[in-house]
Amino acid sequence: MKLLRTGPAGAERPVALREDGTHVDLSGVLAADTAWTFEDLDRARAALGSAPVVDVTGQRTGSPVPRPHAVVCIGLNYRDHAAETGAQVPAEPVVFLKIPSTVVGPFDEVLVPRGSTKTDYEVELGVVLGRTVRYLDSAEEGLAAVAGYVVSHDVSEREFQIERGGTWDKGKNCETFNPLGPWFVTADEVGDPSALGLRCWVDGELRQDGTTKDMVFGVGELVRYLSQFTVLEAGALINTGTPAGVALGQPDPKPYLRTGQVVECEIDGLGRMRQVLGAA
Amino acid sequence: MKLLRTGPAGAERPVALREDGTHVDLSGVLAADTAWTFEDLDRARAALGSAPVVDVTGQRTGSPVPRPHAVVCIGLNYRDHAAETGAQVPAEPVVFLKIPSTVVGPFDEVLVPRGSTKTDYEVELGVVLGRTVRYLDSAEEGLAAVAGYVVSHDVSEREFQIERGGTWDKGKNCETFNPLGPWFVTADEVGDPSALGLRCWVDGELRQDGTTKDMVFGVGELVRYLSQFTVLEAGALINTGTPAGVALGQPDPKPYLRTGQVVECEIDGLGRMRQVLGAA
Repeated sequence: MKLLRTGPAGAERPVALREDGTHVDLSGVLAADTAWTFEDLDRARAALGSAPVVDVTGQRTGSPVPRPHAVVCIGLNYRDHAAETGAQVPAEPVVFLKIPSTVVGPFDEVLVPRGSTKTDYEVELGVVLGRTVRYLDSAEEGLAAVAGYVVSHDVSEREFQIERGGTWDKGKNCETFNPLGPWFVTADEVGDPSALGLRCWVDGELRQDGTTKDMVFGVGELVRYLSQFTVLEAGALINTGTPAGVALGQPDPKPYLRTGQVVECEIDGLGRMRQVLGAA
Repeated sequence: MKLLRTGPAGAERPVALREDGTHVDLSGVLAADTAWTFEDLDRARAALGSAPVVDVTGQRTGSPVPRPHAVVCIGLNYRDHAAETGAQVPAEPVVFLKIPSTVVGPFDEVLVPRGSTKTDYEVELGVVLGRTVRYLDSAEEGLAAVAGYVVSHDVSEREFQIERGGTWDKGKNCETFNPLGPWFVTADEVGDPSALGLRCWVDGELRQDGTTKDMVFGVGELVRYLSQFTVLEAGALINTGTPAGVALGQPDPKPYLRTGQVVECEIDGLGRMRQVLGAA
């Protein structure tokens, strides 16, 4: 099942994209800020045949996941990306956080922060939980807690992240720095999350072309691991890391993003997002 | 004005403590999850004389700030604490994040995480914003955006924070790791935030005894600085760092927290919290 949220920012309604290509309005059965719990997904599935058909042509697509209660990110989780940044493959997951208000829609403008010269792109598989997780015992339990997947763009400012002291969070939380979408695709439709191609283009040039099978830690293991350190609730987003090809990993002069450029991120089965870079 | 939230977890109502020691119920004029915007504070102030008096005896006190949209923390922001941990005084603020669901009430149980041997205490001045901040120009503007203050306990697991790879976030986000309260005290009543004594006791023994005048970066400057890297909304919580005396800074064997112990945190004018340590 493919789910989305359409409408003006802050006033989106939940919508399903059916297999025949038509859209149906789920706002009669789900709250506008549904966190896509497993119960919400059951309600959506039950309403697919009977909910009113809507024409979403010309409407804005919002983030398919409303503001999550947490955005947890995994760093250096692809072997090729760790290598390109000069880092070792981590012995256990590297964890950092984004403030949930960084989440924006898949076609919304992304703003280059004031004073930034090192804004970078990162296509990532976004994992959305369908229930609360706490001290899970196994990767299988972790995978079973996943409601679905989404394309996530973990926009990063490398100077703020690496050269300004402290942790990475400073370069990960600028305004608009986490586009999501276009769809939230349920786990049953995605199947094995460790066999998905993921790609990122800048102005039409392919910059990242990876596969989730190169992840150091898989989706189920990440959920299990995180549940040892915190409690995550339904709707929590986990950004699972990015493959090689980011600007930081290129020879000088590194091709950091500039206003007016266009970034597209795509994952097999999860759709493609497109953001134009603006100025903050 | 002193504000609090009383009632069972998840069902608290907003209450004011008046100067005569009586409490009045503000749930007729404010939403249960009020973020204490400046507008909310005006409404509370206007209702102080007319709102119904309530007896809160025996009721649980919740966090006076409901789940914030962001919890931003400043590391190594007291000269004596930087020294005791062997770190240099930072040239610019060290920033890390907590997941907002770590916030609990001032007298709620704090859970030592499973497998933890290095759970540590940190009393901090918590700053709550009354409006959205974005690219502020001055520390004065930063200070003017502060709605009020709260005692914050930035509970930390030092092994998870420092020895498990990655950023500090892994040791800062365990369940129940951010008690707040007992009151949210408005900025006008607190006056100068750079002249407040703050103390922490473990089992009645004074472990931290500092003053906010030893902060490396003051409250207004912190708000200005953070607004260059992210957008913070009304209700956002900033934990401004801890003075010397944490377990990490003591000679071996370091006095880390164990289940059954009692931590009390207090700041001049902001009240005192008390948490018993339990097991996760």
